[in-house]
Amino acid sequence: MPQTKRTIYDLAGANPDLRFSPPCWAIKMSMKHKGLEFETIPWRFTDKDAISFSGQGRVPVLLDGDREVHDSWQIAQYLDETYPDKPLMKSSTVQASVRFVKAWVDNAMQPAIMPLIIADIYDCIHEKDRDYFRESREKRFGMPLDQVCKDKQKQAAVLNEVLKPLAEALSELDFLGGSTPNYADYAVFGRLQWARVVSRETFAPTDWEGPISEWFNRLLNLYDGFAKQTPRVLGDK
Amino acid sequence: MPQTKRTIYDLAGANPDLRFSPPCWAIKMSMKHKGLEFETIPWRFTDKDAISFSGQGRVPVLLDGDREVHDSWQIAQYLDETYPDKPLMKSSTVQASVRFVKAWVDNAMQPAIMPLIIADIYDCIHEKDRDYFRESREKRFGMPLDQVCKDKQKQAAVLNEVLKPLAEALSELDFLGGSTPNYADYAVFGRLQWARVVSRETFAPTDWEGPISEWFNRLLNLYDGFAKQTPRVLGDK
Repeated sequence: MPQTKRTIYDLAGANPDLRFSPPCWAIKMSMKHKGLEFETIPWRFTDKDAISFSGQGRVPVLLDGDREVHDSWQIAQYLDETYPDKPLMKSSTVQASVRFVKAWVDNAMQPAIMPLIIADIYDCIHEKDRDYFRESREKRFGMPLDQVCKDKQKQAAVLNEVLKPLAEALSELDFLGGSTPNYADYAVFGRLQWARVVSRETFAPTDWEGPISEWFNRLLNLYDGFAKQTPRVLGDK
Repeated sequence: MPQTKRTIYDLAGANPDLRFSPPCWAIKMSMKHKGLEFETIPWRFTDKDAISFSGQGRVPVLLDGDREVHDSWQIAQYLDETYPDKPLMKSSTVQASVRFVKAWVDNAMQPAIMPLIIADIYDCIHEKDRDYFRESREKRFGMPLDQVCKDKQKQAAVLNEVLKPLAEALSELDFLGGSTPNYADYAVFGRLQWARVVSRETFAPTDWEGPISEWFNRLLNLYDGFAKQTPRVLGDK
């Protein structure tokens, strides 16, 4: 039987190997979790035509043979339905809890981290994406990009506060999935990997030492260091 | 076989029927979830002697026949081990996710709600508890009680922001446990019931309408309206 070809459209910077999209990372880790082979296609914010077949304009988009799935949460569920081995969410009860974790990632982690790295993102994206990025983000924040983070130290303290539930839970757990990672881990991981890949400083919230750091390193080392080896703006520093 | 007597030491106000402790509510709802009969003993912050048998000074404390268990998270796990029917957390994977939700309740919800109701709590607790409460909370906040909330409208906006993950998750779910409630629901519920019981205003964060409100009402109505019928400072208003 010929192997199904699987392709993920994956946000890239000017350097096509710089991959920093949080939901794309959540899905790439989920594919690795299930042991599914895939290749990625570098995609930029303004490459709307390249994924117009999906009927929308955001990544990740997964092509699994002739099937198309988009939206990270939909893809995660599609993967569990299609490849039930090594579930990302073992039951509908687990899926409900993970839905909350995902909502926390999007509504608490995202706004706390974004101001710290928004200038780094602008600097690493493709030139053709810059006007789009500036306009859409300035509209979202209601201010010029360079005013979004007036005080990095203060914003790092905000992030530290936001991450407290994660630190407390991980002080008692190996993974948010318990003894093995599940989709909650990958969703949270994606948001931190985002910062790790684009940051020109060492991305270091106040308590970067401790359980979050230990857990993050465990995830970086999974799957033969798949996420650890990805190119970063800072290189190996 | 004689029925085991179960007793919960439950924080009360000056009015012994006014019960507002979030972890006590989480445990009382958990007992109802399992269909376990229990009685409660009203306890005040300074009644340290009454629970000294537990080797610590906080409630809830559960006496289950001759067994003593304290700390809400320990009690929840004890209940699942001892009464495996109608689990509060169906598996170790669910338990791990719920541990995160509990950490979010304690580290994000708690500090966002507390300033809005700290004066209400002070006013409804027993006279003998007031010095203890004022001193311990002024120490925690590093300021006099009446300065903890300088701007209620601003604090309500902070709470609204903190509750966004909950609102988003509940827009797609009946309960954090999925189609039926689990311990995640009861832990979050306890923090809102705290405010509902003591608040002299109608406790109404900016988006109190919507999925959180609908979910909260579902929980209030469970178990023959057990949590709905509890006395409040506002009465039936």
